[in-house]
Amino acid sequence: MSAEAAADVDPFLAMGRRILATQPFSVLIGAELEALGQGSCALGLAITPELKQQNGFAHGGVVSYLADNALTYAGGTAMKVPVVTSEYKINYVRPAIGERLVARARATHVSRSQAVCQCEVYAIGAGSEKLCAIAQGTIVRMGDSARSAPASKEGGE
Amino acid sequence: MSAEAAADVDPFLAMGRRILATQPFSVLIGAELEALGQGSCALGLAITPELKQQNGFAHGGVVSYLADNALTYAGGTAMKVPVVTSEYKINYVRPAIGERLVARARATHVSRSQAVCQCEVYAIGAGSEKLCAIAQGTIVRMGDSARSAPASKEGGE
Amino acid sequence: MSAEAAADVDPFLAMGRRILATQPFSVLIGAELEALGQGSCALGLAITPELKQQNGFAHGGVVSYLADNALTYAGGTAMKVPVVTSEYKINYVRPAIGERLVARARATHVSRSQAVCQCEVYAIGAGSEKLCAIAQGTIVRMGDSARSAPASKEGGE
Amino acid sequence: MSAEAAADVDPFLAMGRRILATQPFSVLIGAELEALGQGSCALGLAITPELKQQNGFAHGGVVSYLADNALTYAGGTAMKVPVVTSEYKINYVRPAIGERLVARARATHVSRSQAVCQCEVYAIGAGSEKLCAIAQGTIVRMGDSARSAPASKEGGE
Repeated sequence: MSAEAAADVDPFLAMGRRILATQPFSVLIGAELEALGQGSCALGLAITPELKQQNGFAHGGVVSYLADNALTYAGGTAMKVPVVTSEYKINYVRPAIGERLVARARATHVSRSQAVCQCEVYAIGAGSEKLCAIAQGTIVRMGDSARSAPASKEGGE
Repeated sequence: MSAEAAADVDPFLAMGRRILATQPFSVLIGAELEALGQGSCALGLAITPELKQQNGFAHGGVVSYLADNALTYAGGTAMKVPVVTSEYKINYVRPAIGERLVARARATHVSRSQAVCQCEVYAIGAGSEKLCAIAQGTIVRMGDSARSAPASKEGGE
Repeated sequence: MSAEAAADVDPFLAMGRRILATQPFSVLIGAELEALGQGSCALGLAITPELKQQNGFAHGGVVSYLADNALTYAGGTAMKVPVVTSEYKINYVRPAIGERLVARARATHVSRSQAVCQCEVYAIGAGSEKLCAIAQGTIVRMGDSARSAPASKEGGE
Repeated sequence: MSAEAAADVDPFLAMGRRILATQPFSVLIGAELEALGQGSCALGLAITPELKQQNGFAHGGVVSYLADNALTYAGGTAMKVPVVTSEYKINYVRPAIGERLVARARATHVSRSQAVCQCEVYAIGAGSEKLCAIAQGTIVRMGDSARSAPASKEGGE
């Protein structure tokens, strides 16, 4: 993205992109934040050869990464605090074949402590979009999460 | 892995490793199949800098990738047919901090058409293992899956 | 429902109601099919005292029942074959307080072998509707399901 | 249960049974707490005719109720505070045919704010037990939950 193009970018989206750029794994995988609103986002990537599995489709892990990260952006912008994904569920419904993937997520219910978010992942190619995965998850305030509290007491391991 | 070491590897595990080596995304992420049985597997990786998020933990997408792929191996070796992950759910319970991650998965219930599998992901470092994610998913025979059937009719998109 | 009212009911909805009436548990819980389309439904019930938990809200099991059954109707009418729920996930987002509950479900992706469906459950009272749960699940053709195949081979129990 | 029998019951289990007895829906459905430990429980019921669906199996909603409530007991006894189920996922793997159902749940990871619990539901009949469902969910401290906070702000409805 050139400096000229950046000048046209909404400051909120620009902030989201700066956060994404600080995640080495998101950089490795080539994720691009295409849109960001309060409680919504579109996160995409190009299906490059190294993101594929043996049959030529984008690997399920790539689809999951996109869904997970898009859910987090939707929840974080809805709650306006630092957040992490606590849990999510994903149904893969079609092979991820095409030139690009885009995950579109939204916060469906927001409370003080969490946001329940939903997301669809589409494969884009040959001028059409095909739904390839559907996800639902819980995004929580960072301090409230077992995940963000390394010193948490725990049992049953 | 040297040729000498490979000579000692169980043929079933060697076959699983050859399949993993055909997945470009698994190669990119550095996944290593540590153990493989009928209905069980251990899939690990080194937490390299490029697999992290901004706070220095392994990215959730890396943890999800491991869980998803380990569930698939557990289900595939239980069903003994080509399979795909149909859906799964994951709870992240602790930041993925350490030198390595390992996902241990098993097929909990197996029928002709599907296997329901469960998986724990552990972060390994400083001589200890810490549980960092818990997953449960459905692995299906490849031909039965919407995911493996690009020509499926669909609605509601 | 009087005979006069029944005469006005859409035949498709009437068929759905006859199926519901054959489920003793749905009768016990007082479920009513309010609307039924191809790939969609609205399933409701009155929050009677026996459906509550100790704090006066409808029990989570009642909310789950409604979501599960609504997902099945949405998937079954989309696939047009006998179906069962294979799996689902539900997030409870608010106490189910009010006079009635209604679950509104739709088939989001339909293939030959399964439908991935989504559902919201609302609590209705004092003239307003409040979202109290969000669900996503997989509905499968009856013969394809482990659940409908008592003779399935199994492992890991 | 007679007064004589009650005298032999572990006080912790007796306390759990008193809580169950305050839930009208649990009474309606005939749930019985069979065992209760710190972070574990067994919750059962007799498959009476009114708990069935049209094909003679216990209704999925009954299986879900058992899993959900068992997860809550496992999480509550692990966390030792009032709790609610925030979310869970269930895979049905076999028709619930038999005389009784029993859900056995345990807390797999416990932190200050939540417990991630797992549960299997078995159908018991003719002297054998058959696995019929597998669940995983998040149990949260009552005050931290969107579900227990009717006044929560919300969006996207």
